[in-house]
Amino acid sequence: MRKVELYDTTLRDGAQTEGISYSVSDKLRIARKLDSLGVHYIEGGWPGSNPKDMQFFKEIKKSHMKNARICAFGSTVRAHTTPAKDANIKALLKAETEVVTLFGKSWNLHVKYVLKTSLDENLKMISSSIAYLKKKGREVIYDAEHFFDAAKDDFDYALKTVLAAEEAGADIIVLCETNGGMIPSAVAGIVRRVQPKIKAPLGIHTHNDCGMAAANSIAAVEEGCEHVQGTMNGYGERCGNADLIVCIGNLKLKLGIDCISDTQLKKLTEVSHYISEVSNMRHQNNQPFVGESAFAHKGGVHINAMVKHPLTYEHIKPDLVGNKSRFLVSELSGRTSILLKAKELQLGLKKEAPHTKKILKLLQDLEHEGYQFEAAEGSFELLMKKAMKKYKKFFDLEGFRVIIEKEKDGKVTSEAAIKLKVNKIEEHTASEGDGPVNALDNALRKALLEFYPALAKMHLTDFKVRVLDERVGTAARVRVLIQSQDEKDSWGTVGVSENIIEASWQALVDSVEYKLLKDKR
Amino acid sequence: MRKVELYDTTLRDGAQTEGISYSVSDKLRIARKLDSLGVHYIEGGWPGSNPKDMQFFKEIKKSHMKNARICAFGSTVRAHTTPAKDANIKALLKAETEVVTLFGKSWNLHVKYVLKTSLDENLKMISSSIAYLKKKGREVIYDAEHFFDAAKDDFDYALKTVLAAEEAGADIIVLCETNGGMIPSAVAGIVRRVQPKIKAPLGIHTHNDCGMAAANSIAAVEEGCEHVQGTMNGYGERCGNADLIVCIGNLKLKLGIDCISDTQLKKLTEVSHYISEVSNMRHQNNQPFVGESAFAHKGGVHINAMVKHPLTYEHIKPDLVGNKSRFLVSELSGRTSILLKAKELQLGLKKEAPHTKKILKLLQDLEHEGYQFEAAEGSFELLMKKAMKKYKKFFDLEGFRVIIEKEKDGKVTSEAAIKLKVNKIEEHTASEGDGPVNALDNALRKALLEFYPALAKMHLTDFKVRVLDERVGTAARVRVLIQSQDEKDSWGTVGVSENIIEASWQALVDSVEYKLLKDKR
Repeated sequence: MRKVELYDTTLRDGAQTEGISYSVSDKLRIARKLDSLGVHYIEGGWPGSNPKDMQFFKEIKKSHMKNARICAFGSTVRAHTTPAKDANIKALLKAETEVVTLFGKSWNLHVKYVLKTSLDENLKMISSSIAYLKKKGREVIYDAEHFFDAAKDDFDYALKTVLAAEEAGADIIVLCETNGGMIPSAVAGIVRRVQPKIKAPLGIHTHNDCGMAAANSIAAVEEGCEHVQGTMNGYGERCGNADLIVCIGNLKLKLGIDCISDTQLKKLTEVSHYISEVSNMRHQNNQPFVGESAFAHKGGVHINAMVKHPLTYEHIKPDLVGNKSRFLVSELSGRTSILLKAKELQLGLKKEAPHTKKILKLLQDLEHEGYQFEAAEGSFELLMKKAMKKYKKFFDLEGFRVIIEKEKDGKVTSEAAIKLKVNKIEEHTASEGDGPVNALDNALRKALLEFYPALAKMHLTDFKVRVLDERVGTAARVRVLIQSQDEKDSWGTVGVSENIIEASWQALVDSVEYKLLKDKR
Repeated sequence: MRKVELYDTTLRDGAQTEGISYSVSDKLRIARKLDSLGVHYIEGGWPGSNPKDMQFFKEIKKSHMKNARICAFGSTVRAHTTPAKDANIKALLKAETEVVTLFGKSWNLHVKYVLKTSLDENLKMISSSIAYLKKKGREVIYDAEHFFDAAKDDFDYALKTVLAAEEAGADIIVLCETNGGMIPSAVAGIVRRVQPKIKAPLGIHTHNDCGMAAANSIAAVEEGCEHVQGTMNGYGERCGNADLIVCIGNLKLKLGIDCISDTQLKKLTEVSHYISEVSNMRHQNNQPFVGESAFAHKGGVHINAMVKHPLTYEHIKPDLVGNKSRFLVSELSGRTSILLKAKELQLGLKKEAPHTKKILKLLQDLEHEGYQFEAAEGSFELLMKKAMKKYKKFFDLEGFRVIIEKEKDGKVTSEAAIKLKVNKIEEHTASEGDGPVNALDNALRKALLEFYPALAKMHLTDFKVRVLDERVGTAARVRVLIQSQDEKDSWGTVGVSENIIEASWQALVDSVEYKLLKDKR
């Protein structure tokens, strides 16, 4: 059986996505998730480029990785510099990772216009950097940037750069399709020419500017590459990198290559969703293998045929990748998936228990109304506990009023007044805010803080609004998702209503109650 | 020069996307846009399946198509039925299109489990349907459903089905990768085997379940296919169809095939955005060629190199497809693009005019605050006219107040009061609503209706809320996009504020004012 290793660069190339900005804690959470998926290498960042990346390398050492090796990424030395004196190489060593991934130039255009040095000097830069890092005991992965454009332009020189890397001791040589401008037949043709000349294992790194990144990676593997670089959900600059989720699906299920185990493959859908949440990116409904619609059938002909035989309109069994078929005429949550979630949360919900059926009905009704618990496990846990009578209220709302006023001069103000009771003690207070939801948020906290000082330690990190039935205009229902965190944890909560203030209120109350419940454990 | 024809099925396969539901008017708008892009065939729907599709075929005859032929889609006759008596075939003829696209079964699995008939009868169904439609003077495109799965399973039988279609007179034979489970090398291999046996032009139709739809289409063209089917932005059931936008980019710029003209290619970005708006789907930032981020550079190394030479990190010049480079450190609107938009709207804004610079500054400031005019050309036009002093107010707001109350029993109510003046006549009124925005919307219309009765003829069709800086929690700014229409037109407006009520107000007022301004023309 052929072996292919997976190399994830979500934390470095993926972080270049417009709209993504990872904290050190985000990076640690993602790295642990990637490890559980069975990825072989995790590129943590470029230690020379910013202090946050160096902090990550320090912190990640405390996590025991079961499958993955951590890589620090950086460039070859500057022209006419010895590696020992190069700031970038020093930073790479300081990261103290088992593996260093070094990128160098293959394309004469780049050597001339970007490095502004000679073709020979570039070869020396590659050799000396790799040799130095090998001497320091590192596993060295060499990323040959722009290799395919380079090979098209001047094949002999491009080949010289990777031969230089091999001679200097590089453990893996990765051919990079950096600009994403190639189609599979072109990539395959170039790999086919290089393959016989290099003894070191070859890898492939592609970008999606032609919509071909995953296809190019698969074509390269078919031509002999043994190492595939990509990012979760295809994040990355411009049109993104090869989506490692899609590559894994194809490697395992189309080429029959055991890059991860069958059990790990079943986590593919969950991992993809988790990382989109941490990245604050909307999960793509139509993402191959793992999207919510990836096995959703809407056409009458298709549904009809699917009932007759499941292979008629599905290329694989969706549970192989942890996904499921959906028939859009009746898209309610299955009992199994809810029981699984309850199990995850250790709520002890048993299939045979008398109230299980009632809880399932409740959840299905809520999902039907537009609630969505995938990103709101805080609300989910509260709801289950309430239904199982494992919950005691922290306060009783007597009522609130939110007033938004616009004056003739254009000035807009928002004020919220709230009346609530904690242990029969009434609190009546008010607050202004930047908009009505913020005013209500402020007033709620103000009212509760003297009873529950721990609330000072939590804060909201994310606030999302999604209009559910856009076509009914301003009367549409909205779903509000709130993400909160304290020094230890992070949790999501949800609210749904035609009234955005009410939807936000539901999510705010769940967020506060979840925090208080959690602290009591 | 090789020729490849483009066949768009957004209106049929694309309409199977979860979340898409086209009205007849949406379909007509999309068809006219596709025609302007230079697509050769437009599949309008399945006349046998629903009355809306038949209505479309009736209406589209009134539009003069410059490039495209309209196709009606349907299946072969039922088993043991003569075409003249088959309801589906009758509906296809009744659509009175120049072209009919007929799909039939290639896969023995489907013949057995779905059609529940014999392999021979299936061949007869294909032959008799095509022969009958040819006799009726139609151009017939034959879609060989599941051809690739079929060929893997029983190549000889699969081939027999397309030979039957060819003998019966099919003008084009389209090999369909219906389940999307193939990778490019497999698709190429099967096309290579079929190609020498069929004299009729071959086409390719693919789905994206492995993330390979566009790559598979390109591979099939490299093996000799001359006809490519797909949908705009890759819409379609499950993971979607081949994205025709991406296919066009690759055919033109990577294979050098003139499927559309260079001038039409420059419209690619605009067409993709337009269709995502009409489809009520979010445009993908990272969509190859046309995404807002497709040529956006964020990494320091990349920006630095791009300044030195534009080819360093871009595979094509973005203006070939009507897109542009962006450097995310300073992502302000260029003067050129604004002038172009003004020209489109025939506002007569000249590059040298004294107030042009002021307007540009204003627009850049607004975009920086989060306004976005791509989907809000109503607001854009108003804004330009205001700046150019070509605008007279329709009313003066004296003030509004919105009150949201939640009572102890959980009941939530929303009420808006508004005071405004039209020609110095004061109107002071109030209204309730489903949520605060709806209450304000109702109150505004109520106040204005006696002065402007035409407002009764317009209504909102879409209401979108996007939180702009999610990480600052409930105090985040939101962008509200409203789409409105009357019997003739449809227009978008925008508002931005930390206060969702104020943001909605801005978009509501623009919507009403645009309607009144438009009626005065």
